[in-house]
Amino acid sequence: MPKPAIAITMGDPAGVGPELCLRALAAPAVRRLCIPVVFGDAAVLRRAAAACGLPFSTPAIALHDWQTGPRVTRPLIVDCRAVAPDAVRPGLVRKACGWASFVYVREAANSTLRRQVRAMATAPIHKEALSRAGVPYPGHTEMLAALTGARKVCMLMASDTLKVGLVTLHVGYTQVRRLLTTRRVLDTIELTAGALRRLGRRRPRIVVCALNPHAGEHGLFGDDEERRIIVPAVRAARRKGLVVEGPLPPDTAFLPAQRRRTDAYVVMYHDQGLIPFKLLAFEKGVNVTLGLPIVRTSVDHGTAFDIAWKGMASPTSLIESLRWAVRLSA
Amino acid sequence: MPKPAIAITMGDPAGVGPELCLRALAAPAVRRLCIPVVFGDAAVLRRAAAACGLPFSTPAIALHDWQTGPRVTRPLIVDCRAVAPDAVRPGLVRKACGWASFVYVREAANSTLRRQVRAMATAPIHKEALSRAGVPYPGHTEMLAALTGARKVCMLMASDTLKVGLVTLHVGYTQVRRLLTTRRVLDTIELTAGALRRLGRRRPRIVVCALNPHAGEHGLFGDDEERRIIVPAVRAARRKGLVVEGPLPPDTAFLPAQRRRTDAYVVMYHDQGLIPFKLLAFEKGVNVTLGLPIVRTSVDHGTAFDIAWKGMASPTSLIESLRWAVRLSA
Repeated sequence: MPKPAIAITMGDPAGVGPELCLRALAAPAVRRLCIPVVFGDAAVLRRAAAACGLPFSTPAIALHDWQTGPRVTRPLIVDCRAVAPDAVRPGLVRKACGWASFVYVREAANSTLRRQVRAMATAPIHKEALSRAGVPYPGHTEMLAALTGARKVCMLMASDTLKVGLVTLHVGYTQVRRLLTTRRVLDTIELTAGALRRLGRRRPRIVVCALNPHAGEHGLFGDDEERRIIVPAVRAARRKGLVVEGPLPPDTAFLPAQRRRTDAYVVMYHDQGLIPFKLLAFEKGVNVTLGLPIVRTSVDHGTAFDIAWKGMASPTSLIESLRWAVRLSA
Repeated sequence: MPKPAIAITMGDPAGVGPELCLRALAAPAVRRLCIPVVFGDAAVLRRAAAACGLPFSTPAIALHDWQTGPRVTRPLIVDCRAVAPDAVRPGLVRKACGWASFVYVREAANSTLRRQVRAMATAPIHKEALSRAGVPYPGHTEMLAALTGARKVCMLMASDTLKVGLVTLHVGYTQVRRLLTTRRVLDTIELTAGALRRLGRRRPRIVVCALNPHAGEHGLFGDDEERRIIVPAVRAARRKGLVVEGPLPPDTAFLPAQRRRTDAYVVMYHDQGLIPFKLLAFEKGVNVTLGLPIVRTSVDHGTAFDIAWKGMASPTSLIESLRWAVRLSA
């Protein structure tokens, strides 16, 4: 069976992305898993390799030549030439780097839509650099929804032992409430259940977390969002045949006894899911964007500007992302 | 050295509180630690003992006789006669039970203020029963602040390995923002640092969590609450000589590397602190109310109506509460 080609985006050139790509290209574990195709800048990778003391021998192909659609048979760099190599200062937020990181994602997404690669895994981008470059999306998830024309998407945090779908993502604490609707909660339940089924769970058991502490304690805390917004979504999901429990108090939902009888969680906001996920699955977790017409996974960490280009970055999470990209696109 | 007398409140009569008190009174670990004085109803305890198949031989004293101030030399029940025993239905929310649970707390607090006992540990109350009884406090913390005339209080979740002070507590998700002020964040930092010093840490290292995901990522998410509210509190605390770091992104603040260099956390809202606390210190944690003129600790769990009076409740958390009550009042 031929190995699947999987796109890897280089992420922000000034972050740990270039080093992670170099390490992934050299890793035997990656070669056993897939044919990696890095979307980045060859000149930046060459400089990063020298700075980190890493080998660099993967052949590069110009973006234009790649777009004419050669068959991929071995590891490759798609050279997007999206940034002047001397504009990159490791560890610094730069507009030019923000723009380049967007180009890598755009081209990898297009190649995945065209089936030139089977799925894509993304290295970290820097939200501020992206914003400075005028890219109108706060992160990968929103960007890929727009690039692929997806109507409803959500982020799933996945590890072997814990899976968490998020109803809202990169928004401020006070913006969460406005975004919470029965429709959105139901969409997230359905997208999460769909991903679990793709992973082989016929009747996945989903637990939905409440918004308020103690799940509102029967309306004592909060504005009864549990009864007004979340319960109707849980009921609608059950009517569609899904196995759903909740809304449960968020602080006990993740305890071991509950985890053992739960295949995936649906949480209302970023930190409600990310605090337990990082505690329980640190460095073994990946992001998956659900609802896209393509499979996209991502590392579980940021650009780590403080250790960029220093030869200290671990590719563990990127390799996990590749493993999940292969698994979910099988 | 004589052992200290510590008050234990019986909690909601229809919950696990009576069983926990009976088990604590019988536990050799408790006898080694302190002289337990249970504030409850002797008739309810007798019925619960029969239902759970537990012994019950501790002498009881009427509340009025207790108030004349005998010296405590052995385990005792202060019989408050706050509820008609046949009004108690295990597992059911009852107005009469809510009222009784309030009376136990009020009398225990008064006895602690009078130094008849050295500290108090509380069994769980039921917030809905309390509300039905017209008690105008959502929980122990608010009740004790009013009963003791404390101006600023906060809840600390404590275990040997993790301590978390909470800026806001039992309020709905959307009410948190309105309650967050620089003053309140600073008070919580100072109260938390004070508790750590009482536990023997001369220069406790405090980490303050952000409100928004990624700590707002330089104002990209949220309304800049980090810069406008939290940073001024951190600076003010530092000017007072405290060692404070933050505001840090909440999802990575609790990872092991950060925990190793942190003595206590200050979090902005209930689940931001309780999700990681329950994951990291489940059944080894206690609540401590800081800012009171008395030492008060509490179990880490609720009334557990589903297993009330069934002989299945574990007194582990109540015994931990007694251990911390002795430690903090030393």
